[in-house]
Amino acid sequence: MKKFITKIDDMLVDSLNGFATAHADLVNLHLDPHFITRKNKSANKVAVISGGGSGHEPLHSGYIGYGMLDAACPGHVFTSPTPDQMLAAAEAVHADKGILFIVKNYAGDVMNFEMAAEMLPFEHATVLTSDDVAVTNSTYTTGRRGVAGTMIVEKCIGSLAETGASLQACKALGDKVNSRTASMGVALTSCTVPAAGRPTFDIDDNELEMGVGIHGEPGRRREAMREADVIVKDLVAAILEDLESVHLKAFDINSGETSEALLMINGFGATPLMELYLLYNLAAKLFNQHGLQISRSLVGNYTTALDMAGASITICLLDDEIKQHWDSPVHTSALRWGR
Amino acid sequence: MKKFITKIDDMLVDSLNGFATAHADLVNLHLDPHFITRKNKSANKVAVISGGGSGHEPLHSGYIGYGMLDAACPGHVFTSPTPDQMLAAAEAVHADKGILFIVKNYAGDVMNFEMAAEMLPFEHATVLTSDDVAVTNSTYTTGRRGVAGTMIVEKCIGSLAETGASLQACKALGDKVNSRTASMGVALTSCTVPAAGRPTFDIDDNELEMGVGIHGEPGRRREAMREADVIVKDLVAAILEDLESVHLKAFDINSGETSEALLMINGFGATPLMELYLLYNLAAKLFNQHGLQISRSLVGNYTTALDMAGASITICLLDDEIKQHWDSPVHTSALRWGR
Repeated sequence: MKKFITKIDDMLVDSLNGFATAHADLVNLHLDPHFITRKNKSANKVAVISGGGSGHEPLHSGYIGYGMLDAACPGHVFTSPTPDQMLAAAEAVHADKGILFIVKNYAGDVMNFEMAAEMLPFEHATVLTSDDVAVTNSTYTTGRRGVAGTMIVEKCIGSLAETGASLQACKALGDKVNSRTASMGVALTSCTVPAAGRPTFDIDDNELEMGVGIHGEPGRRREAMREADVIVKDLVAAILEDLESVHLKAFDINSGETSEALLMINGFGATPLMELYLLYNLAAKLFNQHGLQISRSLVGNYTTALDMAGASITICLLDDEIKQHWDSPVHTSALRWGR
Repeated sequence: MKKFITKIDDMLVDSLNGFATAHADLVNLHLDPHFITRKNKSANKVAVISGGGSGHEPLHSGYIGYGMLDAACPGHVFTSPTPDQMLAAAEAVHADKGILFIVKNYAGDVMNFEMAAEMLPFEHATVLTSDDVAVTNSTYTTGRRGVAGTMIVEKCIGSLAETGASLQACKALGDKVNSRTASMGVALTSCTVPAAGRPTFDIDDNELEMGVGIHGEPGRRREAMREADVIVKDLVAAILEDLESVHLKAFDINSGETSEALLMINGFGATPLMELYLLYNLAAKLFNQHGLQISRSLVGNYTTALDMAGASITICLLDDEIKQHWDSPVHTSALRWGR
């Protein structure tokens, strides 16, 4: 294992200190327990908090700021944060309109956010994200995994919260965005967790893992390496199958009514932008052929799996409300427009 | 080699098509010869054009847009674009105030941009970037290499050009920014050029390449892998030594006058953001100890070397003029603020 680390035990705090120093205009870092809060938070809004294991950066810390998150709780690499982190973060950022937790659906995260929620002295709600269509249950999950689509949920909720909307309205929008978002990924290599010191899984030079999770959990199947157009065809088919089965009412590709979509190509950490744009080109064409009009696009490393080579494709079915909140100004370290 | 590619010969065009489709609000793609131009270009400004081998994305195409580049000419992977590309790009974007080429100092790029410049029917000037302090001459270079600092030059020139400034003023600012910018990188792995199909250089599991170039060219020395704090100490020392020797007048760390700096930690493609922030933390502390006040920061993949694991550190010595042009609004696919 070759990584830029001084001492493995200090890696998380060293990195958090760098993040907080580099973005001192946007965030404050709190240690013991670890959480990061937004500077210059608007008064009288729902406090939007997320968190999860580290190693997926810029998720979640990179999305703290105007129009998105008020706080994030980083666990150790691929390890859930603990309830005291969420409680301390909630105490720090609540503003009399309640606390909304955004939680990726992994057993550890769900349990720890639930424990924190039970102890919270404030009104609160939780949006669970579950956009990964690859598998029904997984290594760390009962039910579908929350992956790259989580960032879209965070953007839309953050935008609505900024308007002073109620906790119930923010939760309803988050649930709606999650229900209209579908993702699936593919790994070409494993990632290496620093404390483990070796790759999370073995994969041959001529293999890929179709439907991989963002911690290197198994996906649908191990396959022989193939050309990009064949890989993308399979990912797009899986996403379309899911959207069509879940959203029979909301999404009828023949009706022409709800065919507008956001397409995100998310790199897992070690895949060059040149390849991600190549994947975008293939995916956009296929979705177009199936009646989806791609009107919003995002290509880059937005939800990573440390140093894994691979990528995921995410579709979010847009409506006027989601478009409005996706397009609204945002100012975070990893996503910024309109200000 | 495992990469997301359909046919190696089509890779560049497939990727360019994806880029142009994903950012259709910002750019137009032209093929045969290949170049990318900015949409909604302001009238009556110096046309700012860059280019170089592909594989360094988001450099240069990701910096096309308001306040930065008007066009970029992508060569094949790690291969200079040809003069007909620069000529066609110049024809497409010139607006009666002349053409400014921003060229990284590599023999092939310099030669081809010079050939294009000689044939240009418009007033023109060239800014050569040479921020890499690692080596004096290199595999593809006479004189220092242009690396991650090039983006800072592009940002500042682009900002000044947007105000309607003259070609001479834009060239002078670019030369100044380049002279005040110093970078050095380190590789933990090689990159793999798709057409070659195997790693550009061999490196053992316990080695690093100190001072590596962005095509995998040799740096100062091959060393045993070490802790991040030791690596950063060496990189920072090399950068400081260069700045102090070159900028004896402009940069006196004891005078307190010109001590403000921009610090960029640039990932080469396969290094997780978590590690880049850890490097930032170490570098910022060391520069502070040496009298530099880090008032602007950038951490991420800005000038990459395909799938190389590694990173570079860049310092740009700020003055009021550079700060103004760094802070001014920019709207490109890879760098955006203020609008």
